[in-house]
Amino acid sequence: MAHSLHYSLTLAIVFALSSYTSMAQASKRPREYGIRFGVMPTGQLNAITDVPGVRVGQVTLNHGENVRTGVTAILPHVGNQFQQKSPAAIYIGNGFGKLAGYSQVEELGTLETPIVLTNTLNVPTAADAIIDYTLSQSGNEQIRSVNPVVGETNDGFLNDIRGRHVTKQNVIDAIQQAKTGPVEEGNVGAGTGTICFGFKGGIGTSSRKLPASLGGYTVGVLVQTNFGGTLQIAGVPVGVALGRYEFKDNLDGSCMMVVLTDAPLDARNLKRLAKRAFLGLGHTGGIASNGSGDYVIAVSTAYQIPHASKNAFDEVKLLRNDNVSPLFMAAIEATEEAIINSLFAAKTLTGHQGHRIERLPVEKVVEILKNAGQAR
Amino acid sequence: MAHSLHYSLTLAIVFALSSYTSMAQASKRPREYGIRFGVMPTGQLNAITDVPGVRVGQVTLNHGENVRTGVTAILPHVGNQFQQKSPAAIYIGNGFGKLAGYSQVEELGTLETPIVLTNTLNVPTAADAIIDYTLSQSGNEQIRSVNPVVGETNDGFLNDIRGRHVTKQNVIDAIQQAKTGPVEEGNVGAGTGTICFGFKGGIGTSSRKLPASLGGYTVGVLVQTNFGGTLQIAGVPVGVALGRYEFKDNLDGSCMMVVLTDAPLDARNLKRLAKRAFLGLGHTGGIASNGSGDYVIAVSTAYQIPHASKNAFDEVKLLRNDNVSPLFMAAIEATEEAIINSLFAAKTLTGHQGHRIERLPVEKVVEILKNAGQAR
Amino acid sequence: MAHSLHYSLTLAIVFALSSYTSMAQASKRPREYGIRFGVMPTGQLNAITDVPGVRVGQVTLNHGENVRTGVTAILPHVGNQFQQKSPAAIYIGNGFGKLAGYSQVEELGTLETPIVLTNTLNVPTAADAIIDYTLSQSGNEQIRSVNPVVGETNDGFLNDIRGRHVTKQNVIDAIQQAKTGPVEEGNVGAGTGTICFGFKGGIGTSSRKLPASLGGYTVGVLVQTNFGGTLQIAGVPVGVALGRYEFKDNLDGSCMMVVLTDAPLDARNLKRLAKRAFLGLGHTGGIASNGSGDYVIAVSTAYQIPHASKNAFDEVKLLRNDNVSPLFMAAIEATEEAIINSLFAAKTLTGHQGHRIERLPVEKVVEILKNAGQAR
Amino acid sequence: MAHSLHYSLTLAIVFALSSYTSMAQASKRPREYGIRFGVMPTGQLNAITDVPGVRVGQVTLNHGENVRTGVTAILPHVGNQFQQKSPAAIYIGNGFGKLAGYSQVEELGTLETPIVLTNTLNVPTAADAIIDYTLSQSGNEQIRSVNPVVGETNDGFLNDIRGRHVTKQNVIDAIQQAKTGPVEEGNVGAGTGTICFGFKGGIGTSSRKLPASLGGYTVGVLVQTNFGGTLQIAGVPVGVALGRYEFKDNLDGSCMMVVLTDAPLDARNLKRLAKRAFLGLGHTGGIASNGSGDYVIAVSTAYQIPHASKNAFDEVKLLRNDNVSPLFMAAIEATEEAIINSLFAAKTLTGHQGHRIERLPVEKVVEILKNAGQAR
Repeated sequence: MAHSLHYSLTLAIVFALSSYTSMAQASKRPREYGIRFGVMPTGQLNAITDVPGVRVGQVTLNHGENVRTGVTAILPHVGNQFQQKSPAAIYIGNGFGKLAGYSQVEELGTLETPIVLTNTLNVPTAADAIIDYTLSQSGNEQIRSVNPVVGETNDGFLNDIRGRHVTKQNVIDAIQQAKTGPVEEGNVGAGTGTICFGFKGGIGTSSRKLPASLGGYTVGVLVQTNFGGTLQIAGVPVGVALGRYEFKDNLDGSCMMVVLTDAPLDARNLKRLAKRAFLGLGHTGGIASNGSGDYVIAVSTAYQIPHASKNAFDEVKLLRNDNVSPLFMAAIEATEEAIINSLFAAKTLTGHQGHRIERLPVEKVVEILKNAGQAR
Repeated sequence: MAHSLHYSLTLAIVFALSSYTSMAQASKRPREYGIRFGVMPTGQLNAITDVPGVRVGQVTLNHGENVRTGVTAILPHVGNQFQQKSPAAIYIGNGFGKLAGYSQVEELGTLETPIVLTNTLNVPTAADAIIDYTLSQSGNEQIRSVNPVVGETNDGFLNDIRGRHVTKQNVIDAIQQAKTGPVEEGNVGAGTGTICFGFKGGIGTSSRKLPASLGGYTVGVLVQTNFGGTLQIAGVPVGVALGRYEFKDNLDGSCMMVVLTDAPLDARNLKRLAKRAFLGLGHTGGIASNGSGDYVIAVSTAYQIPHASKNAFDEVKLLRNDNVSPLFMAAIEATEEAIINSLFAAKTLTGHQGHRIERLPVEKVVEILKNAGQAR
Repeated sequence: MAHSLHYSLTLAIVFALSSYTSMAQASKRPREYGIRFGVMPTGQLNAITDVPGVRVGQVTLNHGENVRTGVTAILPHVGNQFQQKSPAAIYIGNGFGKLAGYSQVEELGTLETPIVLTNTLNVPTAADAIIDYTLSQSGNEQIRSVNPVVGETNDGFLNDIRGRHVTKQNVIDAIQQAKTGPVEEGNVGAGTGTICFGFKGGIGTSSRKLPASLGGYTVGVLVQTNFGGTLQIAGVPVGVALGRYEFKDNLDGSCMMVVLTDAPLDARNLKRLAKRAFLGLGHTGGIASNGSGDYVIAVSTAYQIPHASKNAFDEVKLLRNDNVSPLFMAAIEATEEAIINSLFAAKTLTGHQGHRIERLPVEKVVEILKNAGQAR
Repeated sequence: MAHSLHYSLTLAIVFALSSYTSMAQASKRPREYGIRFGVMPTGQLNAITDVPGVRVGQVTLNHGENVRTGVTAILPHVGNQFQQKSPAAIYIGNGFGKLAGYSQVEELGTLETPIVLTNTLNVPTAADAIIDYTLSQSGNEQIRSVNPVVGETNDGFLNDIRGRHVTKQNVIDAIQQAKTGPVEEGNVGAGTGTICFGFKGGIGTSSRKLPASLGGYTVGVLVQTNFGGTLQIAGVPVGVALGRYEFKDNLDGSCMMVVLTDAPLDARNLKRLAKRAFLGLGHTGGIASNGSGDYVIAVSTAYQIPHASKNAFDEVKLLRNDNVSPLFMAAIEATEEAIINSLFAAKTLTGHQGHRIERLPVEKVVEILKNAGQAR
């Protein structure tokens, strides 16, 4: 835990370099190949940050022979998240995972910290860092209880996960560097060392924007992809075409999905929205295998619930049940696309114990999709 | 409720005729066009009845101008279901429905009656009929508590649902006529008047068989399709190609899914299996809209739990968690195929208030799939 | 099922007589003996009807040698319940029961029919009757989907439950006769033939009123008591003192609990409130045994959710999480008292197959409580 | 986090002294005053360790002016818990808490680490320590995923909780010092700084033993008490008699409950058992207020599920549903008694910011109970 200054500096440099490299190699996103997922239009960036106010921060740890991990933080709004809690819900697709913070979100219907994603064995580190961060925020001096929400997937094939290389500072950095605008995808942040459908996975993001007649709301999704199954892209059974699928092995792994929206939903309807992201995972060929930790965290930015209030009531204006279905469709489509985006952005990586995972052969995949009439 | 004898006879004749007719018009199933769903082999009949011992009985009510409904019954084993309960679980995809029997299955992990599907407003009729049936079975003379499991979808567009035309006798007939072998699909039983993706829906079934190395188990699925979304077949966005999809309207409706397997699972793993059928629904483009009642009932035929026993213990041999993932994949694939099977089998129907719903334009669809390389 | 007119008339007379009789024998309630449950004040009537607008209707079937059952209906407000749905939730204490309507209440957070309680095997009858009632209400002419909520306990020891003697008309009568004001307790309505702690159980009710400083809200509870355990009254182990308790046998049975409040809660907080009623059941010595069907239905009368609306939003003013704890305490206390009230009001009854269940020996019990300083 | 060696030594001495002191002041348990909780006999020690093989380890941090916290670890069996997982379930009474490990236990039905209790803000520390412990165990060299189960209550009134004074070493010490035999109660381990019903709370334990005719099983409970309500002891409203109860304030706080049994139950029935402990909490006057984190972790020691196995099956011999009710009663009684035991054992404590909480006035309480005929 006690990293020396020298080490920290090295890290910073490595991080800077790896950022640079991945930027330099920036790949085309599926949409640039004419691939379409569903029928709804995306937001401007086709990213979770299309939801106004949402920020993402990522710290990538890619150094030495063994460290291939990182942190991705998602912040729903610019205020003090603890003092201005967001309506939220968590859906558990398959619970073989270590997500922190489930029961309080479930009971109270609110999120009081940033959402942090990292590797499985660093969940406690990240939770502790979120506590540090929250306790030290201005206005939180009297706070004695914090419910950190941390998701994870297991990057232990490419990363020396037992080494638990993520530090509290990495987590705080990810939170503090969070920004609006484009979100880096692929081997970055919590997706640095993940594997998806036997190829290199990572972070992916996408969004959908409803027409004004349906409220004009945006649904943004960010995923950390680390699971198996038989890859399907825009409906095309790419995994079969590539000869890469399994009945039993390589199925395990997990997918963290974070869904943000500016639609005014309470926890009950956010939970329903979260459940639809799980259907989006299914669209890609994911089966939520026994060993998966598939969780969806859904948050609305439409209003906040103050931590303390002189008012005995919360006055809320909520979208009626009748009107949520288009949001459901949006969550399915954006989750599917975010997952495929992560695969298109990810790069071949060698890591822990010399393990090597190839990137998705994008050119070949695009060819397959063209033949199926799903890319141009 | 007080149907005269004359009426009952008429019904019987109508039923016989409608059965005959639908047999005569028997359509090709998607597999006969070379369409493939997933990567696993089907069972011999590609039907829920591939699971040894499982029987299905259907009564179709298609008469006059307004009655387009019916009953489908699924029986897990040939014995007295109440005395020899089956391990079971129910997963609620979207709970806007009237399924009877949920909480007891959930609490005790067992199914003690046949599963019956019908229309929304006849759930009480069907539940009452199951009680009749169970109380009158030999060996159940002292039974004073029965938990009927009844699922439904709403066929109120084509059927005069407010008339509640299903009788207790119809339900008992469906149970008593249940048989192994091929299962009729389309406008039959509980699927007589249902609508799916804007086309005529109905009953569909499919199965998967695991290789011997993974246990050789069969997973069989039967569905009652009555929901919306953007139709996708074998991954191909057929709904878009046909110009038939909606963001908001025509999304509602429901899907009942019944999953049987001879794999030795307890209620906990059956619930997980049931959840995967919901992913299969997602594969077809279903979004589980606000108005959906999407339920999955999963049952194992591998062993029974006796109602009464001198033994204080149940001794069970259960598939380990590690080995359930191939069953999950099987449930996803078979559910997807069962839904599409229902669409291929269904016929154009005119009913209540002159409402008319066209069948899926199968020839056109096959053409679209051929162009996408997904049919031959 | 086909009751003749003659039979119906007989029933009506029997009902009138039995009502009269039970009124004539009206017993003192525990509070009249100085027994106190908890620390909060009751509402004016110490009944569920202390919640403004709430009405209760009961039909008692106590005739011949074998029929000892009935119906109790609870109506949250005077309007059309389907068109003006109430926020609601259902908590399942132990799910060995046949409650109808769970999943839709859970999914949508609303109640769209009266709540009806009856015996286990007449749940379908009651559900069907609620559908009749709802379809025929003015304004509901186009309705094709109804989610009847029916609870039950098993009165099969004193009642010929296999005969299913409750008719649809009985259920509709209970709904239509529902009224504000005092609620009859004991051998009445759905409590006619129930057994509790080895004594005659039945219907009981109680309420609590919060001080104005905490909002002045009322919490009202109505119970149908039919369960076992070791009876405890105001904390005093009466069951032990009476030599009436068991480790194993006579534990089974069920308790239906209905909680109404005028506090503005949504479904999430209503579910939490419902869960506290289960703690109230625990206070009486109930253990929610394996064979119990213990359900709590909680409903707020503070606002309604219209079935259809031109407005895309529901604007609601909800009590903050911080302020719900006094309501929780109120639900616990009122449930405990309602259960004991049912026992004090119930009368010795002989029924099916000559089975006879004694009433609670009230005088002896009061003596025991006096000695413990809990009655005067 | 970087405690110096000097500091650690100081801690060790303080711990030794505080242990000594609390032993020296060992108080009488309620049973020694003739107080009885329920009707079932206790195990030999009336402790969770009556369940064969179960061990408890506690580290108490009571030093300086501000540190009043600690760790309590419960180990189900002597083997490698990761390699030999225990069937387990977690019931959430009220989820305003930070329990780690919920979803995996829920999904897989197994516990793979010791259970650790501590304060709210040290959950990540404890989780990280459990990972350390598990990774370093012989036989776990290849393990890359661990699901630590950590419960907590908030001792922030008496303890400088923001200082997060529990170290990973404290947690590992608690695990490694775990032993069979009597369990220290009161201001010890995770109960060092807790408050219950406005009095000093802490750790408490109790057990019940079923008669041989019902299987002879033991149910043991350990609690960390930190909640409010209106105290009731053996049914007697002691809180009212002492003038110590509240409608609104001082209600919050939490209760962690751990239930062990040697009865052969699977996760489903363990969850039902866990739920009954929540009823036991209700018996003491706890209301599970809005701010409570009330969780029950239930574990069976009757068999283990191997992490890896050549066998595709788990063969298990499970107690039938019909036979679990006496275990339910045992869990209720033992939880109630464990909570009261914690209050009888706890001592007046001054801590953080000079806050002082008085112990339960045991003599006065016993007098009140004597007058009610509940103590001698």
